[in-house]
Amino acid sequence: MNILHSIPQEDGFYMPAEFAPHEGCILIFPHRRDSWQNGAYAARKAFAQVIEQIAKSEKVLVCARYDDYDAARFLLPPWVRVVEMESDDSWARDVAPTFVTNGHTIRGIDWGFNAWGGLTDGLYFPWDKDNKMARKLCDLLNVDTYDKRDFILEGGSIHSDGEGTILTTEACLLSEGRNPSMTKEEIEAELKSCLGAEKVLWLPCGIYHDETNEHVDNICAFTAPGEVVLAWTDDIDDPQYAMSKQCLDYLNSVTDAKGRRIKVHLLPLPKPVTITAEECDGLDDMNGEPTRTPGERLAASYVNFYIANQHVVVPQFGDDNDSKALDILQTLFPTRQVVGIYARDILIGGGNIHCITQQIPSAES
Amino acid sequence: MNILHSIPQEDGFYMPAEFAPHEGCILIFPHRRDSWQNGAYAARKAFAQVIEQIAKSEKVLVCARYDDYDAARFLLPPWVRVVEMESDDSWARDVAPTFVTNGHTIRGIDWGFNAWGGLTDGLYFPWDKDNKMARKLCDLLNVDTYDKRDFILEGGSIHSDGEGTILTTEACLLSEGRNPSMTKEEIEAELKSCLGAEKVLWLPCGIYHDETNEHVDNICAFTAPGEVVLAWTDDIDDPQYAMSKQCLDYLNSVTDAKGRRIKVHLLPLPKPVTITAEECDGLDDMNGEPTRTPGERLAASYVNFYIANQHVVVPQFGDDNDSKALDILQTLFPTRQVVGIYARDILIGGGNIHCITQQIPSAES
Repeated sequence: MNILHSIPQEDGFYMPAEFAPHEGCILIFPHRRDSWQNGAYAARKAFAQVIEQIAKSEKVLVCARYDDYDAARFLLPPWVRVVEMESDDSWARDVAPTFVTNGHTIRGIDWGFNAWGGLTDGLYFPWDKDNKMARKLCDLLNVDTYDKRDFILEGGSIHSDGEGTILTTEACLLSEGRNPSMTKEEIEAELKSCLGAEKVLWLPCGIYHDETNEHVDNICAFTAPGEVVLAWTDDIDDPQYAMSKQCLDYLNSVTDAKGRRIKVHLLPLPKPVTITAEECDGLDDMNGEPTRTPGERLAASYVNFYIANQHVVVPQFGDDNDSKALDILQTLFPTRQVVGIYARDILIGGGNIHCITQQIPSAES
Repeated sequence: MNILHSIPQEDGFYMPAEFAPHEGCILIFPHRRDSWQNGAYAARKAFAQVIEQIAKSEKVLVCARYDDYDAARFLLPPWVRVVEMESDDSWARDVAPTFVTNGHTIRGIDWGFNAWGGLTDGLYFPWDKDNKMARKLCDLLNVDTYDKRDFILEGGSIHSDGEGTILTTEACLLSEGRNPSMTKEEIEAELKSCLGAEKVLWLPCGIYHDETNEHVDNICAFTAPGEVVLAWTDDIDDPQYAMSKQCLDYLNSVTDAKGRRIKVHLLPLPKPVTITAEECDGLDDMNGEPTRTPGERLAASYVNFYIANQHVVVPQFGDDNDSKALDILQTLFPTRQVVGIYARDILIGGGNIHCITQQIPSAES
């Protein structure tokens, strides 16, 4: 593995869309006791369901801490590869490399990671194990890696349409805890040069109470070039309404890198999901403080799906809108089978199916 | 990775000779402060030389502990893959899988490992990290693994000619700390069924003061089917003389699985190598006791070489016989380049170049 200090775009590399063909998918076996209730017992079962579903059409690689290797190996099917790798938590989307391709070979971008905000508003300390994973994953996969550790970015804060357009949120990328010394223009230039893109679309915000500073991958996702789904509620008393409306207005006002208007498909949100006292009881305290409090709203959204080669894997919450979300997505992904997985036990950790996955694109993407 | 409980021989698998083509080679980045002087500083440089030499004709995979990943990554060239894996020490020969093939695919055998003798006369405690490596390496390499953890064996205690003959030593395999409940006949049957062999040749002993209970790979190695090199001294006052003579007499008295007499090439030993007070000072104590004492004899032998695809990598000791050993081996391996590497800093750890390597055979071997 070469550690590169050149610029991906100048090297002819770009980030393919998630709906382009994948070589495989990376996940991390959950373990953090202040993120996942009851020693991650329920989360592991939910992760395993996601893994087994994705493994039907992709090679899946699961990183497990030394202490968890045996547990992971025996929980997961033999066709899933388990490798030893230390981590602070289990969000592959945010700590695994962002892969780029030149149509022949892939490379990984190793962004700086500071637990969603570092000492300003990060979610845990330290985060050094997470921050080292991207490089090690590139080494493991035998692909060269771009050293972009001086730029703080998580994979969940960007989407690519594979045709020159990047989707992100101002709430996250302009947050004080990421790259406060950079202007919006400088950040945009960095995204373009790293991801081989021509245009960045800046949604103003994300999902209410999303502790990642409102990652784009919880509110909006490309389903095709020029087309997105947007998390939506019709309840004007919900603080999410104004947020989604702002995003819709923005999307209706812009064009993408190819000059296309954006076709927006509204994807209904589930009714607000809150954490129970019993669930909170299952979480270790962090520095003597509870990590969540009973009744706290969780950032539930069907947009947090993963597009696998032959499936779309969608979180379900036991809500009336569960099947409606699946139906809408099935219409938008006619060549893939849309599959729902009950994901409350992932949501409690603070994210969902998209957050715990990171695709490895086919080199030919 | 499937964990198999069947019998390799019955599945049509056997252990190829080391001189058969390799897919690659596994090593472990040294770290143990009571094995390697001065925090393994010198050992790492020596390992790196071995790695760079092997990497000229094979893919090399180096396992580094979480804490050592960065050091390994920056010391080793980019074309060597470094992966995170915890270990107790750094002897890939003894803790990595023994690979077997059926001519189409390879599988790894995961033997039990107890640090060369467990609580009887093992060299350290605990050894659980080492014992878990073989399975994890198979998972990493995406090959199925035979669960033979109930049988204690190290790779350094066996050689295969790839044509049905296994070479081992009684001193090691019949030692109290390995499989004391098994008879010699039972151990021989286990070797045959696991390694797909027809005959086991039992050398009586190995190298004097070899703390592995005299592994075969320090005294005798196949250079071709029916041909071996045997570590030899003409000094009849050296306790090694009687040991090598016993082995020579044994080899002259047996035939291999194909009914061939064994052609024995004597490979001179270096003059006795002893550890200095300064070297001992660089080693951490173990449980309050020095791990080595000044003047202690080390088990130096040129037989502890590694046969790479295009090279034979041979330890050197700054001895008059260094070049003689290279010359003899060059004659015996006419299609490979024989390369010497100064290996005192590996020897101090208790083994040599063969002990720190484990070949991954080509499936077609």
